[in-house]
This record gives sequence, C-alpha cells and structure tokens, in this order.
Amino acid sequence: MRHITFLLFIILFTATTSCTDTEMQEVRNQFPSLEYSIAIHGGAGVMSRDMPVETREAYIRSLTEALTIGRDMLAEGASSLDAIETVIRFMEDDPLFNAGRGAVLTNTGTAELDASVMDGRDLSAGAIAGVKTVKNPISLARHVMENSRHILFAGDGAEHYADEAGVERVENSYFITDNRRRQLERAIERDEVRFDHSGSSAAGDFPDSDNDRFGTVGVVALDRDGNLAAGTSTGGMTNKRFGRVGDSPIIGAGTYADNRTCAISGTGTGEQFIRNAVAYQISAIMEYTGASLQEAAEIVVHEKLNEGDGGIIGVGSDGSIAMVFNTPGMYRGAANSEGLFDVRIWD
Amino acid sequence: MRHITFLLFIILFTATTSCTDTEMQEVRNQFPSLEYSIAIHGGAGVMSRDMPVETREAYIRSLTEALTIGRDMLAEGASSLDAIETVIRFMEDDPLFNAGRGAVLTNTGTAELDASVMDGRDLSAGAIAGVKTVKNPISLARHVMENSRHILFAGDGAEHYADEAGVERVENSYFITDNRRRQLERAIERDEVRFDHSGSSAAGDFPDSDNDRFGTVGVVALDRDGNLAAGTSTGGMTNKRFGRVGDSPIIGAGTYADNRTCAISGTGTGEQFIRNAVAYQISAIMEYTGASLQEAAEIVVHEKLNEGDGGIIGVGSDGSIAMVFNTPGMYRGAANSEGLFDVRIWD
Repeated sequence: MRHITFLLFIILFTATTSCTDTEMQEVRNQFPSLEYSIAIHGGAGVMSRDMPVETREAYIRSLTEALTIGRDMLAEGASSLDAIETVIRFMEDDPLFNAGRGAVLTNTGTAELDASVMDGRDLSAGAIAGVKTVKNPISLARHVMENSRHILFAGDGAEHYADEAGVERVENSYFITDNRRRQLERAIERDEVRFDHSGSSAAGDFPDSDNDRFGTVGVVALDRDGNLAAGTSTGGMTNKRFGRVGDSPIIGAGTYADNRTCAISGTGTGEQFIRNAVAYQISAIMEYTGASLQEAAEIVVHEKLNEGDGGIIGVGSDGSIAMVFNTPGMYRGAANSEGLFDVRIWD
Repeated sequence: MRHITFLLFIILFTATTSCTDTEMQEVRNQFPSLEYSIAIHGGAGVMSRDMPVETREAYIRSLTEALTIGRDMLAEGASSLDAIETVIRFMEDDPLFNAGRGAVLTNTGTAELDASVMDGRDLSAGAIAGVKTVKNPISLARHVMENSRHILFAGDGAEHYADEAGVERVENSYFITDNRRRQLERAIERDEVRFDHSGSSAAGDFPDSDNDRFGTVGVVALDRDGNLAAGTSTGGMTNKRFGRVGDSPIIGAGTYADNRTCAISGTGTGEQFIRNAVAYQISAIMEYTGASLQEAAEIVVHEKLNEGDGGIIGVGSDGSIAMVFNTPGMYRGAANSEGLFDVRIWD
C-alpha cells in the first residue's frame, strides 16, 4: 500500500513538474529577446467603475507619463535603479498618489512617509519609515542603501539620517492636500483606519466609499544589463496610529529584488504582506520550485492573501511582467523593449 | 533531443524528491512521539574558548535556568506563546544578555530595544522597534499582536502604544550596565559599530575583542497542542546609529512561525538577515521543497549567509530542533518531551 501511494506521488509530482516546465518555456518563448521591462503601480483597491471621467483620465494621464519616463530611460540604457527612483519621485510629487505630496494622514494629522528600494545585483537594500520632512522618501531610501551599513531607519532616526544625507527637505504641510485632510476628518468621525489612498477620493470630487481604499506607489524594472531593481513609497493608511510601520519599508514584505528571480513591489493591507513575506515569497517560490513569475505571484496573491488584500507588480529576470491583484482594481502600467505599453485600472 | 533532456529531468527530479521524502521520514522516525520541544539562544559570535571559567559558568547557569523554565511550562501544558514570552522575559531581565537590562548602547548612549513575536497558528505577529522605557519589550510585542490591528510600531509610536497598553515602564538608565557603558566608550574610540553583545565582555571581567560580537535572545517552542511560536528580543548593536532597525523586530527576517512548517529565531548581522529573509526563507524551503527543518536551516545559514553572520534556532512542527550557526559559538539550549536537555556555547 505504501509503495502504491509512493508511486502515485511520483506520477503526480512528475505531471505537475512537467506542466510547470512547459509553461515556463512558453513564457520565455513569448519574450525571446527582452532587453528591458518595467512595471508600475499606484495602488490597488475598490475603484468604482462609475469614477468620473476626469478622475479616471487624470490617473491614466499620470500613469502614462510615469511609465513613459521609465521606459525611455531604460531604452536609453539607464540602470534599473535610476529608472525606478526617477519614476517613483515623479509619482511622489504627484498628489494623485498616496506617496510624497498627497500622502494620507495619520490620526494626529501629519503625513508620515515610508519607502524602500532593493538592488537585485547583490540584495543590497535601503528603507526608511515614518519620515515627515523628506520630500522624496525613495531617494533617502536609496541613500541608506548606498551609503550606510544599515538597511532601515525609523522615525526620528530617519530624520537625523536625512540631516546628514543632505536630501531635499520640506515642511510637513507640503505633503498635505485638502482632500487628504477631509478624508482624515471623515475617517475619524467613523473611527476607522483607512488603508492608503483611494483613487477616487484622492481626486477630490468623488465621494469616499468604505470600500475604495489602498494606495502606495511602486516600480520594478529590468535594465539592458540584466539587473533588476524594485522600489516602493507610501503614506500608509488614513487615520493610522502614529508610529505604525506597514509593509512598504520592509524588505521581503513590500519590496524585493534578486537578479536570479524577480523584482517585486506590493500594495495593500500591509500587515498581510508582512506576515506572508509577500515580495520575498514570490522570489522564493521561483527559486525553490522553478515556477514562473506569473505562477509564483498567483500562488501568493490568490492562495496566501485574502480576497481584497491588495496586489503586486513584478518583473522577472527574463523580462516577463506580472501584475496580480485580488482587489477589483489596481492603478498600473507595463512596458518593455518589444513595444508593450499598457496602462490600466481594472481587469 | 528535447525529449531526452525532458526525460532526464523527470528522472533526476523523481530521484531528488524520493530522497528528500525518505530523509524526512527518517527525521520523523527519530522523534516518534514528541509532545513538546523548545530551543533558546542568547546570541551568536566569536566566544573565546579562553573565556574565564566564571564567565562561562554564568552563561551556562542562566541558559539552564531559562531552558528549565520553558521546558517545565510546556510539560505542564502551557501554550508555546506563554512559554516563549516567559523565557524571553527572564533573559531580558538578566544583564548577561543583550536584551532588556544589559542591552548594548546606541551612539547616543541610550538603550533602544526591539522585539517581535509570532503565533504559528494563524501567522499573527507583533513587534516593536526602538523603545526606551519598556521593561520587557517581548511583552509589548505580544500586546501589539493580540490587541492591535497592526504588526509593527517604531520609536515614539511604540512608546505611545506602551502608554496605552499599560506595560511596566522603567527609566532608560535601568537597562544600562557599567559594562555596556565601557563597551560603548571603547567602540566610539575605535569608531566601529559593534553588533549586539559579546558574551565575554558582558560578564565584565574579560576584555573585548574585535571579534567577539553578536547577541540577541530568542526562544522557539512547540506545545502539546501542536502550536508553534517564536520570539526574539534585542538591544541591537553597540554604537549603532540612532533609529537603526535590525532584523529582530522584522517578521520574516529575525522571527517567523507557521504551524505547517517551523518556528525560527535568528541572531547575527541584522542587515544580512533582512535581505535574505532568513527566518521566513527556512519556512519557505520546508513548505516548497519538503526539506526537513535541519536541511532548510543549513541551506540558509551556510549557503545564503556569509561565514560569521550569525545563527538560528528552530523547532519544526514535528518537534525536531535545529540550531545552526556560522560563527564559532552560539549561546543555546534545547529540550523536549523525550528527555533531551542540552545547553552549549561552542560546537
């Protein structure tokens, strides 16, 4: 009986393995000569399809501009690190997104920003949590990665680090928009913690719904030298408690990059991303089972996370792109050296 | 040609799979009826074998007492969570270890403490980083896990959280011992960042060496109900920069627990543990390849980390125990329901 079970196990395992192998071959054949690839996100959540046309167009326009910046840099031979930093800075500066200017507010009415970046060449990484005066948190995270022996600085320590790093500083009021202030007031009235931003409410002229939530921006890229990089930047959740650290500054949770597998940036319920080590888990599945990026991302987003938790974008070492989410929508875009250029909000 | 390659691949894969399967069976057969298991560590590093007898005995005595507390609790049917919290509190209170009282000092001369805890039943987790007035950081981490919607609070936010949680508070001076103050002065003179504690210097009468470093305490356990839990607590590194967050409060890096696989606590160069997602990676290897705890831990500690980075303790869902390190020594102990009771410093 044990022998039969064992035989069945081998047959089943072999079948599964050969299937995966074939599928991987297919994915690679689809992109025989990808020289570069890039994917971006501006948050996942319940974005109503009844969103006003001007709101939708504002997002599409901004995502298109962000993706164009990154795509053009990569086409011209820029490193994936330079490309993701530049694109994330653009999105941080755009008040549409819950990162940098336009970030949501904590329960004390301030903007506290998190960001992280990882270099797939050597797994070097940098991250900051809870900064209040750094105009572009992603650039400070990169400074930590490239100039510090450490990976993560939090709170006052991150501000001190910024003093020495010489990055551009602003008053906390720079980050705060009228829409975010109203969003906080409504959240406090309801005594709820709202995750990240909602696309619709951020545009100001569309009412909040209890469902439209989540935010964060992230970019992943493969450059012409075959190097992967990932970065994520966020203002966290509306009405979050002072000092709460989500997944965005946690290497392995919200951000991961390894040249041998993939580069990942996530967006959604940070706690779920932390306890499931979402970004790293996708890389681990690829490394240890030989699964494709798409297969690995689907396992984590659809089988490990709960419905509504959020989504990820990823670029594989072969240039393949995955954009997987379990929310109704995710602001996102993807481009590559084969002419792909696609910006979407819903399925 | 492709068919032959494919056939070879199947044969090879089948062989590998059956081998792993057999090995796992062996590990289980070694421990046919483990009702509970516990492992503890008090830091890994270069502990000189010339350590004075009284220093060595102090560590062995403290580790033995800590292990006895945990073993007895588990024998009496306590939950793994209660056992790990109680043992870590004991180690936090003992100035021998770099956690709680006796923690090393930052470059500003204060103690900043980190801790995390994870429940293998449902992947719930809690962590705090950079608290300065919480007597037992592990208990605050557990409070976050059980009473908050969040996982990680850092810096001032963690202090605010402690205000509401009602945990025992102390002046920062409570944590500071004369030995740690002298250790900091020496480190500042040398302008070096020293990781965690060294067993020898902590005992006060043995000179620091550039090599004896690393610290942190951690406990992992399997209880009679089959539930795994892991916890880690640390003062970080001597002369570390204010606000630096290491791996100990990062779920997936320094701590992980999943009833389906294992419970892990790590100690060593925090940045290396973060970028390799060490604790979670061991769980992932078990989950996705069927490797045993020992096999998975050896892959991560010996193949992913660099020599000298540190070590881990782990308990598997079958009660197996792994204690793997790439430093000359690790303060550690292991006990189980079959009568194992072992405390060691070196190989």
